[in-house]
Amino acid sequence: MAKKAKTAITPTRTEDYTEWYQQVVRASDLAERSPVRGCMVIRPWGYALWENIVRELDDMFKATGVKNAYFPLFIPLSFLEKEAEHVEGFAKECAVVTHHRLEKGPEGGLVPAGSLNEPLVVRPTSETIIGDSFSKWVSSYRDLPLLINQWANVVRWEMRTRIFLRTSEFLWQEGHTVHATDKDAIERTRLMLDVYAKLAEEYLAIPVIKGTKTPSERFPGALDTLCIEAMMQDRKALQAGTSHFLGQNFAKASDIKFHSAEGTEEYAWTTSWGASTRLIGGLIMTHGDDDGIILPPRVASSHVVIMPIAKKPEDRSKVMEYTETLAKELREKYYHHRRIQVEIDDRDVGGRGWDWIKKGIPVRVEIGPRDIADNSVFIGTRDKEYKDRSSLKRDQFVAEITNILDEIQDTLFQRALTFREKNTIIINDNKQFYEFFTPQNQDKPEIHGGFSLSPWCGSEECESKIKEDLSVTIRCIPFDNEAEKGNCICCGKPDSKQVIFAKAY
Amino acid sequence: MAKKAKTAITPTRTEDYTEWYQQVVRASDLAERSPVRGCMVIRPWGYALWENIVRELDDMFKATGVKNAYFPLFIPLSFLEKEAEHVEGFAKECAVVTHHRLEKGPEGGLVPAGSLNEPLVVRPTSETIIGDSFSKWVSSYRDLPLLINQWANVVRWEMRTRIFLRTSEFLWQEGHTVHATDKDAIERTRLMLDVYAKLAEEYLAIPVIKGTKTPSERFPGALDTLCIEAMMQDRKALQAGTSHFLGQNFAKASDIKFHSAEGTEEYAWTTSWGASTRLIGGLIMTHGDDDGIILPPRVASSHVVIMPIAKKPEDRSKVMEYTETLAKELREKYYHHRRIQVEIDDRDVGGRGWDWIKKGIPVRVEIGPRDIADNSVFIGTRDKEYKDRSSLKRDQFVAEITNILDEIQDTLFQRALTFREKNTIIINDNKQFYEFFTPQNQDKPEIHGGFSLSPWCGSEECESKIKEDLSVTIRCIPFDNEAEKGNCICCGKPDSKQVIFAKAY
Repeated sequence: MAKKAKTAITPTRTEDYTEWYQQVVRASDLAERSPVRGCMVIRPWGYALWENIVRELDDMFKATGVKNAYFPLFIPLSFLEKEAEHVEGFAKECAVVTHHRLEKGPEGGLVPAGSLNEPLVVRPTSETIIGDSFSKWVSSYRDLPLLINQWANVVRWEMRTRIFLRTSEFLWQEGHTVHATDKDAIERTRLMLDVYAKLAEEYLAIPVIKGTKTPSERFPGALDTLCIEAMMQDRKALQAGTSHFLGQNFAKASDIKFHSAEGTEEYAWTTSWGASTRLIGGLIMTHGDDDGIILPPRVASSHVVIMPIAKKPEDRSKVMEYTETLAKELREKYYHHRRIQVEIDDRDVGGRGWDWIKKGIPVRVEIGPRDIADNSVFIGTRDKEYKDRSSLKRDQFVAEITNILDEIQDTLFQRALTFREKNTIIINDNKQFYEFFTPQNQDKPEIHGGFSLSPWCGSEECESKIKEDLSVTIRCIPFDNEAEKGNCICCGKPDSKQVIFAKAY
Repeated sequence: MAKKAKTAITPTRTEDYTEWYQQVVRASDLAERSPVRGCMVIRPWGYALWENIVRELDDMFKATGVKNAYFPLFIPLSFLEKEAEHVEGFAKECAVVTHHRLEKGPEGGLVPAGSLNEPLVVRPTSETIIGDSFSKWVSSYRDLPLLINQWANVVRWEMRTRIFLRTSEFLWQEGHTVHATDKDAIERTRLMLDVYAKLAEEYLAIPVIKGTKTPSERFPGALDTLCIEAMMQDRKALQAGTSHFLGQNFAKASDIKFHSAEGTEEYAWTTSWGASTRLIGGLIMTHGDDDGIILPPRVASSHVVIMPIAKKPEDRSKVMEYTETLAKELREKYYHHRRIQVEIDDRDVGGRGWDWIKKGIPVRVEIGPRDIADNSVFIGTRDKEYKDRSSLKRDQFVAEITNILDEIQDTLFQRALTFREKNTIIINDNKQFYEFFTPQNQDKPEIHGGFSLSPWCGSEECESKIKEDLSVTIRCIPFDNEAEKGNCICCGKPDSKQVIFAKAY
């Protein structure tokens, strides 16, 4: 494959990863900043991607018995205060509604009026308001498990925002379940983490590591937070989904009790779990290259773009007819359980192809009079692996399109997995650990760091020292890693568990 | 069919229609009040219904070229003020965010802190914030039409709320389109009204009348508001969807301009259109009977419930196996493009059947050892029309299930249509008009009123006099009714257009 002199995105990833991300989002038409501080506008190309993620995740939830419901956007302040750690965790970033109308102010403009007796918080998460309903819905062990999910917008007033990754308002789902025993609740917490891992790996083509958060990184009010962690191309970690075992904390706060089979009254055990539009940020940073985003076919906003080429006016109708027929035939086929989505771009402008490369569509097709004469099509795949920009017989292309899409999906996943593996190392030596996370060359910060598998004694002191020294956190204590032990990378204490350290978003 | 002595819902519709509605909602598990003033909790049975409505409507929108996107929940006050009539229309019912965090107050509890420079309004509708994006997305006639829809929650701080019909927060979709000419915008306004009418009639089984609102009933800022109006069983009208031609008002407010093919710069023409969870209220009031709701099969939360009956423990496994096999077979079939949804209720409690009647599921199936011996099933349909509570051969039932569902769907629509036609009369006489809308017997208010087709001169004076005298409004000026003219029902002015008068929700 010939190397292009120029990339579609400036700067490139190695030049300035942060700015590259902003430029990729801009060039992709996925989303844009809004005039409302920290809020984004999700454009149709980005929203179609989100709709596909929602559909897949929703199907997986329902297959485990979860049902959807909807709860109020507003949470009375007194509800939020019911769980002490919880309110402590969210108080600093709450949008607060204090008035219920507008009226003419002294200077002529409108001002807030109709002061509320109790301020309402725009939900940052819904444990407390959903808990109120659950306390009414649950009375007997026969009502359990109660498995509920909500698709909603939430607001967390972030000081430093970044499109998709950290926005004041974002879209997400939040699952909330109630169980009769701690064992059932813990099993559900783990089951939903597995669902997130499946979404990430099989649909978003993002390899993830499953594990447990340290106490300091838990959801406010949780007894245990499980997570999936992915490596971005700057080697930083992104948390891509979390599942919380809440113990009886929220059941006690919201008075969720049930009569057991033995006739005793007991507090229930609850869980909550969420994934958000942040996943799109992770997808961009995992697969994007210096020409823009690359959409994994399983969730892509669209699969194929056909660009008819008819320089002579007399060719136009023939080329368009061939295009329409091909599009129709492709649209009748299924890629997994979704119909193949086809765009036709018949704009007469230069750089059409580059627009679609920047939008990350998996397959581009060009059709000109010569292709028609030869009964062939000229195709390019966005991952550049599959016979890039090569000619295929038309019928062969139609027959193979689902294989082509599957190959792109696999390539993206394998490429990301190889990258992560290459940049994950076992470090048992303190000096090597500090070197690993300290850029030796300020101009090339990318050549150091990644995931370090290192022993940690379990103390908050060692965890904070490393965070302070290096801005490195424990991403998770990976599952199935019990056997790996050594001397704490910070204090040297023996028999310490191996955990994953990394810089993170 | 034997008449039951007692109904599942108390009071009945004739006894107290308003209270009947509240009790039906409660008994159905569709939704419930929340501790947040005027907001509702949509329970799983109600949310599944909404999901089905969303899916059908979304498919219809997309078939006309509309794409989904998402815009911020918050609208800066200054944006809302851009269109004078618009802000005037919504100022009295806005939830206003004034702070972005909470901190310990003097009395120890949390109080709002971090005052915002500019208050943010929780969107009551999104013309102004979406207009801001549109002004950036549109620059040439080639960008038009721009056809966007948003599925979202909105907040209108209502003083008197009623579940589904009028809640402070509700779920809806709002479509927003931009066009190069007034003609294109007007056509789109009408096209989307037709989509709403199709949803109402073919899916919700609610017959509707399409027409134009009078100027006083228009959306604030619109040049024209089209609507569909339905008749509830208390003969009052319910507006079930609106489509607005906004002229250039919002394009001017948001600076949406484009370069025409001729090279001139012009303001665009916009539309907006919306339908909400209010439709569920309309569905309940159109089809509900004194035993609860009746769900139209095309959007029903589920289609069939199977209730195994095994009084002797030794029958249990055989009955459950027969039940599971039947459920599996039904679930493999499609009703229109959706798989048949089957519930199994094997609870050992009395009144199971009544629970499902109150939830409005279209078909109930009972299976006991004798049915199995006879290879048959015992079925009841919620509309009570189809061989109610009769025995059918099992294979015949499986073969006919989609026909049974279609028959229920048709019955519901025809029943509602007959009811509306019976209660819609042409009145040209002022005295008769006043009598029609004045209950003669305060104990039986239901025996008067309905839709009156009467001439109106077009003056706001006559419109308000009737509203003041009778609480009756002009629901719409129906389409295709141009020929019907007479003397204004209020002032007697000749050559006045026939319009629909009614009391309304």
